Amino acid sequence: MMLMPLICVNGNVLPVRKARISAVDRGFLFGDAVYEVIKVHQGVPLFLDHHLRRLCNSLKEAGIPFPKGLVPALLNYLQRPGVRRNGSLYLEISRGAHLRRHIPPERLKPTVVFFVQNHHFHTMREREKGYALHAMRDIRWKRCDIKAASLMGAILCKLEAHARGAQEVLFYDARGRFTEAGSTNFYAVLGSTIHTHPLGGAILKGVTRTLLKETAKGLGLRWSERAPRLKEIGTWDEAFVSGTLTGIMPVVAIDKKRIRRGMGPVTRRLMKAFEGMETEALAAWPNEREILVKACGGK
Amino acid sequence: MMLMPLICVNGNVLPVRKARISAVDRGFLFGDAVYEVIKVHQGVPLFLDHHLRRLCNSLKEAGIPFPKGLVPALLNYLQRPGVRRNGSLYLEISRGAHLRRHIPPERLKPTVVFFVQNHHFHTMREREKGYALHAMRDIRWKRCDIKAASLMGAILCKLEAHARGAQEVLFYDARGRFTEAGSTNFYAVLGSTIHTHPLGGAILKGVTRTLLKETAKGLGLRWSERAPRLKEIGTWDEAFVSGTLTGIMPVVAIDKKRIRRGMGPVTRRLMKAFEGMETEALAAWPNEREILVKACGGK
Repeated sequence: MMLMPLICVNGNVLPVRKARISAVDRGFLFGDAVYEVIKVHQGVPLFLDHHLRRLCNSLKEAGIPFPKGLVPALLNYLQRPGVRRNGSLYLEISRGAHLRRHIPPERLKPTVVFFVQNHHFHTMREREKGYALHAMRDIRWKRCDIKAASLMGAILCKLEAHARGAQEVLFYDARGRFTEAGSTNFYAVLGSTIHTHPLGGAILKGVTRTLLKETAKGLGLRWSERAPRLKEIGTWDEAFVSGTLTGIMPVVAIDKKRIRRGMGPVTRRLMKAFEGMETEALAAWPNEREILVKACGGK
Repeated sequence: MMLMPLICVNGNVLPVRKARISAVDRGFLFGDAVYEVIKVHQGVPLFLDHHLRRLCNSLKEAGIPFPKGLVPALLNYLQRPGVRRNGSLYLEISRGAHLRRHIPPERLKPTVVFFVQNHHFHTMREREKGYALHAMRDIRWKRCDIKAASLMGAILCKLEAHARGAQEVLFYDARGRFTEAGSTNFYAVLGSTIHTHPLGGAILKGVTRTLLKETAKGLGLRWSERAPRLKEIGTWDEAFVSGTLTGIMPVVAIDKKRIRRGMGPVTRRLMKAFEGMETEALAAWPNEREILVKACGGK
């Protein structure tokens, strides 16, 4: 039986069936909210610093103020009995609740919701099998750098990919360039070069992407931000996706086209290096936590 | 003082401060919901048939089932004491509440929220003044024909337009064609021809747009679905926007460029004709309501 998560809504921690928000919250009325998803392992929110940095950026771009006391509230919640020690931490901040008007009143108080829920992290066996992707025209908005809760576009495409038996949708733009997958970044490997779409409005700046970019050089791999293209699929040696919950996952096929190698040597090396980074983050956490607590006023 | 609206959440009618939804509603987590906005005049939901047709289409495209008993619940709500007789009826249907997973479980029960809230409908004096628009590149998703609650793109652009002192944002695509405004359709008039963007994923099929198209011919006006262009602004005689709550509103300027005539003869004729359609709809309502009640099983 599944342990029902405890949900924190504006500072109140409640069981999921009692956790309620206003029916006129702008997150509900407009998708006017930003979010983060963080992997929690042994009670540790992995790469929290990266996620908070990105959250700050999303909030700034959306013009939503950073909620006071958010970080201490998060840290306290994670230590609370009954909160899952392993799973995914979901955090959403909406512009607040008010009767429906596109232009919100001034000084609206943001709504803060977060919780850790169960997540099945892929086993090595599942990674060996890899993902089959379904390629679709990118119909999403042009500010995917903002991690916004306006996700109907991604949802409809994910449903379509799912119906076709694929594990994930892979988006391409008007010029046949792959932008990213439904909830992961996408990479094609040629020899020792990793090709991926450049940052900008077309993709999210994935935390795992950032970490892989930092580590690639040290592994003797080249990093190219010339986006992989639809017509080039047959030329790739390997392909993979990366994301906070997915980790690094080989791509074995895009629709009917098989990728030459499933879990190839480059993907495997990146996976191993990334594992090391997770272990390091885990070990560094007590220290990092202390710094955060001090920065937030010792609470 | 403003009368606080009564909100119907899954059949329960509550004052706004008590109207709550689940914190894990997909409308909140993903903007995974569709909606309608209907003008209510003297207790009558104007052009309800058109709005229900469009709602059915949005639900179908989003793969959300039509909620059972929705229409009788709406009709009952509108007759309830304490419900505004004049204002805007907002109706939202999300895919339902569940822990966060992109692919929802099967047979999820949709969440239904609706309410009538106060709305200031523009006076003739305000219409004579017209709207100044701020033109921006259309960053929204490519399925604007689905009236989805994933509106962060529209909201951010509306905030930008508002900050620049404009009444509304006007979107143009990569080729400089005007698609639509933030919450209205857009039209440019040359002589007796009305130019507007064709239907498809770039715009919403506005109810007022549909009614104007039907009536234009009878007024001796030509209807052209060749989209007005950024570089053509100086050549237009008139321009206007139309929407359920906005009605027909002359556009007097787009950024620094003035439109030749504010409320010109074509806009004025359409406005008058549309007023007549509203009056007819009002008169036809008792009969229409009866048919709806019968169709819904006599409740």
